[in-house]
Amino acid sequence: MTVTSRKQYVVSRPVYSEDSLNEDHEKMQRKHKALMEHVKEYLTCDANRAKKAVVSVLPVIGWMRTYRVRQWLLGDVVSGVRTGLVAIMQGLAFSLLASLPPSYGFYTAFFPMLTYFFFGTSRHISVDPFPVLSLMVGAVVTRLVPEDGPHANITDFESLTQDQQRVLVASSVTFLTGIFQLAMGVLQVGFIVVYFSDTLLSGFTTAAAVHFLVSQLKFVLGLSVPGINGPLSLCKSKFGIFVQITSTNKCDLVMSIVIMVVVFIVKELNDRYRAKLPVSIPIEVIMTVIACGVSYGFNFEKRYDVEVVGTMVRGYESPIVPSVQVFQESAVEAFPVAIVGFAVAFSVAKVYSNKHDYPIDGNQELVAFGVSNMFGATFRSFAASKALSRTAVQESSGGKTQVAGLVSAMMAMIVTVALGFLLEPLPRSVLGALVVVNLKGMLMQFREIPYLWRRDEPECVVWVGTCLAAILLGLDLGLAVGLGIELLTVVFRTQFPRCSILANLPRNKVCEPKGVKIFRIPSPIFFANIEFLRNKLVEAVGFDPLRVLRKRNKTLRKIKKLLQKRDHGITEKGLENLFRTATDDPEMNWSAELPSEFSVPAVNLHSLILDFSAVSFLDISAMKGLKMALKEFTHVDVDVYIVSCDALIMEKLTSCMFFDDEIRTSMFFPTLHDAMLDVLEKHKDNSTGSVVRKK
Amino acid sequence: MTVTSRKQYVVSRPVYSEDSLNEDHEKMQRKHKALMEHVKEYLTCDANRAKKAVVSVLPVIGWMRTYRVRQWLLGDVVSGVRTGLVAIMQGLAFSLLASLPPSYGFYTAFFPMLTYFFFGTSRHISVDPFPVLSLMVGAVVTRLVPEDGPHANITDFESLTQDQQRVLVASSVTFLTGIFQLAMGVLQVGFIVVYFSDTLLSGFTTAAAVHFLVSQLKFVLGLSVPGINGPLSLCKSKFGIFVQITSTNKCDLVMSIVIMVVVFIVKELNDRYRAKLPVSIPIEVIMTVIACGVSYGFNFEKRYDVEVVGTMVRGYESPIVPSVQVFQESAVEAFPVAIVGFAVAFSVAKVYSNKHDYPIDGNQELVAFGVSNMFGATFRSFAASKALSRTAVQESSGGKTQVAGLVSAMMAMIVTVALGFLLEPLPRSVLGALVVVNLKGMLMQFREIPYLWRRDEPECVVWVGTCLAAILLGLDLGLAVGLGIELLTVVFRTQFPRCSILANLPRNKVCEPKGVKIFRIPSPIFFANIEFLRNKLVEAVGFDPLRVLRKRNKTLRKIKKLLQKRDHGITEKGLENLFRTATDDPEMNWSAELPSEFSVPAVNLHSLILDFSAVSFLDISAMKGLKMALKEFTHVDVDVYIVSCDALIMEKLTSCMFFDDEIRTSMFFPTLHDAMLDVLEKHKDNSTGSVVRKK
Repeated sequence: MTVTSRKQYVVSRPVYSEDSLNEDHEKMQRKHKALMEHVKEYLTCDANRAKKAVVSVLPVIGWMRTYRVRQWLLGDVVSGVRTGLVAIMQGLAFSLLASLPPSYGFYTAFFPMLTYFFFGTSRHISVDPFPVLSLMVGAVVTRLVPEDGPHANITDFESLTQDQQRVLVASSVTFLTGIFQLAMGVLQVGFIVVYFSDTLLSGFTTAAAVHFLVSQLKFVLGLSVPGINGPLSLCKSKFGIFVQITSTNKCDLVMSIVIMVVVFIVKELNDRYRAKLPVSIPIEVIMTVIACGVSYGFNFEKRYDVEVVGTMVRGYESPIVPSVQVFQESAVEAFPVAIVGFAVAFSVAKVYSNKHDYPIDGNQELVAFGVSNMFGATFRSFAASKALSRTAVQESSGGKTQVAGLVSAMMAMIVTVALGFLLEPLPRSVLGALVVVNLKGMLMQFREIPYLWRRDEPECVVWVGTCLAAILLGLDLGLAVGLGIELLTVVFRTQFPRCSILANLPRNKVCEPKGVKIFRIPSPIFFANIEFLRNKLVEAVGFDPLRVLRKRNKTLRKIKKLLQKRDHGITEKGLENLFRTATDDPEMNWSAELPSEFSVPAVNLHSLILDFSAVSFLDISAMKGLKMALKEFTHVDVDVYIVSCDALIMEKLTSCMFFDDEIRTSMFFPTLHDAMLDVLEKHKDNSTGSVVRKK
Repeated sequence: MTVTSRKQYVVSRPVYSEDSLNEDHEKMQRKHKALMEHVKEYLTCDANRAKKAVVSVLPVIGWMRTYRVRQWLLGDVVSGVRTGLVAIMQGLAFSLLASLPPSYGFYTAFFPMLTYFFFGTSRHISVDPFPVLSLMVGAVVTRLVPEDGPHANITDFESLTQDQQRVLVASSVTFLTGIFQLAMGVLQVGFIVVYFSDTLLSGFTTAAAVHFLVSQLKFVLGLSVPGINGPLSLCKSKFGIFVQITSTNKCDLVMSIVIMVVVFIVKELNDRYRAKLPVSIPIEVIMTVIACGVSYGFNFEKRYDVEVVGTMVRGYESPIVPSVQVFQESAVEAFPVAIVGFAVAFSVAKVYSNKHDYPIDGNQELVAFGVSNMFGATFRSFAASKALSRTAVQESSGGKTQVAGLVSAMMAMIVTVALGFLLEPLPRSVLGALVVVNLKGMLMQFREIPYLWRRDEPECVVWVGTCLAAILLGLDLGLAVGLGIELLTVVFRTQFPRCSILANLPRNKVCEPKGVKIFRIPSPIFFANIEFLRNKLVEAVGFDPLRVLRKRNKTLRKIKKLLQKRDHGITEKGLENLFRTATDDPEMNWSAELPSEFSVPAVNLHSLILDFSAVSFLDISAMKGLKMALKEFTHVDVDVYIVSCDALIMEKLTSCMFFDDEIRTSMFFPTLHDAMLDVLEKHKDNSTGSVVRKK
């Protein structure tokens, strides 16, 4: 049927319409599985299935069986120690973001990891405090237990110190977050992360970086500004800092600037000479040790009134029961924490699972995070996730499995139990400075704006919208707004597609076939764009069929009146040739020239071909509109062809009674060319100008 | 170039790739208008433009000039009188829905119409109290001024009676609604109504009908239940009624039931014998008159303790200044009122503008409604819109222009000024009963559920979701939820399209070309579905290219090790023929049989053709994913072809640096057939099984 000559495109086959194609080639019936079969399949149980189910709930069983002690253990331990160092530093700093006493950061580096080890499917991610989540938890903490002023009306707070109240709030929020994550995992809704596109997350994390910056400024400047919440909290915080700027602690400021400059330079050097250095310089650890020493030696706390980390809780405290009242107060805020924590972690985990070729399971990850957060929360840790930077450390230093994570958790335990007191003289401004320096990468994401704008305006709008909303309204509300904007862009893009008219390309020039318009519908057709598409179609053909029809009917009535008069003796010149037949219900020949008193828009079209190849769905509202539009055209004697229509859409049209006397299946053709050949065949004899036939 | 034999499809032309097509046919440059030109065009002013602008702001000038007094005036007056009767009845009933004294319903039937006459573009709609809006305004009224208990803390309320407070709240909300509508009109955002699809509005109005039913029950039963607001208010109201059910006023109940039965039967008869009756029987007016008379004659108010309409305000009161404090309290609720009022009215107006062939302008309609509501609000009327039923009366009784509306407004004025006292003995239960009977049509919309479910599940979800949300959460929140669900269905449908594999149809059986897979991408590609599409593609080709590549690399390393050993004297049988060349960097022949110890998944594919004809947009996140997927396939020696790609998408790909050494423009072909011919040409010699070439 298809003949190939060298580099020549030759086709020769009968012209098909959808109807004749169906006649020649009988349709195969698709077999649909009955609902019962699905249920049956789902409920079948055998040893193999049971085993699989256990492994999928406790993935540790799967990878522990194949653990190669000789090859992997050393790498895991080394990597665990290095990751542990980073986790301790960050735990300390991020507990300040969460407005909690520093030792709870170590708890967060320890407890969640223990359960993730058993439940997680990723082998490389490290579950630790994560700055964005810390900040979100911190927002709830400062709302319910403000620095000064009365705390929220919660009976569980009675007989607790402020710090204890805060820890209770943080662990309750974390517990609730865990419940949400576990529920989502059990309900198998892990797929929602696809909505967190790179663009959205980039805008969101940039906004978070701005929040960090402001929240750390008070530490860097040594001021005590109360944590402020709610929309526009950022501006209020900034204002609070600005008011107090004269009482800046000079010792804090100098120390912060020195540390920032040194760390910044060393990090740049690390980046530049990465290839040549055996290991990158752990400048943050070095600076912390130095700062601790200096602060202790010169007794900064007493002499310069510098705020230091202060007394660490030694060892672990007894588990606590989360407060149901806090659940009620913070449900709206815990949900975004759950979502963001999972989305960030999953995107990181996917990078490494792709690189190292092992499967990860989104829903199982949700379960793992949920259990980890709930377990951690009972032991007073706050919401944990995993950051790209720390996971990168774990992987690049040779970590192969979660055994490395376990080692890093042990490091945190050692610090908690034995070495915590060494960090007591560390000034808080040093921690703030280290956080600020680490924001460079996140703040650099602002450079994406011009890049996105040039490439794809809607994505730029998503980025800027998410970022602004998250800065101005707070992280949780901002995320919701960003998500809304993102989904709207999809709707908009689907709704306002670029329509096009197709034409022939004979030799080096575009040439539209005479009397035929080929209109390509470039998107699904649904309630929101049917009107838009109809307008585009009217614009493309150059006349509004409804208007033409009305004008024609009006004219016809007038002419009939005139003709009746003529029957009564009055003759009007030029009216006879308007009719092709002389029956009682005469057919007008609209292409003939009318007397000047009748103004009927010209229709220089006999066929309209609609290319449906991009119509992937069609809803019922749109179907009504489409039918109306098609009828309008057939009423002004334009033949409508629909080509490349999807088989499922054809089925749906049939089941919704789309077809009737005027709209028939015979207008459907499998390809544009088939339809065009049919048009040419029909209009063989009179290929001049506007030709109208009555069907 | 195209040869047509009778009913035969014959094409013969060179095979084109996108590259060669561009060479042969130079692309025409599209001329984009510069921004300045747009601005210039926009700012140009001449007499014609000025005239048009005036007419577009005051459409009355346009149609008044062509008003045909002889032909139209009589029809307009007759229709105005009939519409006026209906409007008075409904104004009375709907003011109860809004929890206001009844006379304000007449105000609402009068003032907004006066301004709509000048500003409106529709000639048939009647601007009157509208039940859904009345209920929404009523919700604010009862929230701010509850029946019992303290009213909201608003200083403007001082020294006002409860009814006066309520009127102030209602008119302030209406004024704010008007401001929103005017603002939307000025900002030209009238297009938002496209999002209110028929399905959404149907679900929403059904929910509103349920609310009416419950809110009228207390009148029908003669109980005094305080208005309750907020989510789940419906259940609470029902409970309130249930608790009091024993104190039902039997006189009210009997009267209501009698009226409901009579009106229902007569309406059915009206419908059935519509063709035979000269005019339909105005049963509601008749019943009202009878009820008034009976109630007055037997002194129902005193004798049976029946609640009657009571003292009417005679004449008009002085205008009031809306309360800014109420604005602040009710902004969130006024916005949905503005949107719903406009959406309902516009959908009605469009029906008639289509029927009678005159243009209506969404943005001008918004302006007209905004001005009408603001004007009306200063004269103490509440939010107005137009309902299909009343507009149908106006049109069917011969109304041609808004002159009919003016007449109907005058009727309301007469009642207010002179005849209002006649309605004073009317029992409220009668009004309630009339509202309930009129709900039949709206409640019948429940029948749409099974219809929609069979045809189009997502739309059914939208309907049920909107209806449930509006019933449970209240009308304003419910509308927002419904809108969200509706937009999500669009995203979902775009996101999870039905993918398909294309094949040849030689004679009566489907036959896939050997070694070639043709995959049709049936939707735009964006952040949320790139992963889904990749999975579908992997499923379609039957192997995961990434996995294959990793296995191959592993095997290659092993074999190289073995070969090195062989160089040292160990020979392994069967390894020589694995390599096609014997260079230092040998090329594996992966289709050859490997020794059993190596398990590499087979790739029985040499070409993959992706049909992009339905890809109407492609975002940047998806572009990264697509590039990665294409590379994965080229790395396992599968030639990838992309066909029917939109020209704009090609441009975007180029500008986003999609192309590099591996992904080249030469993989793009204008049609599927061109690509297929290229594949056949390349694989002419070895058309057997899996063939792999190294590029």
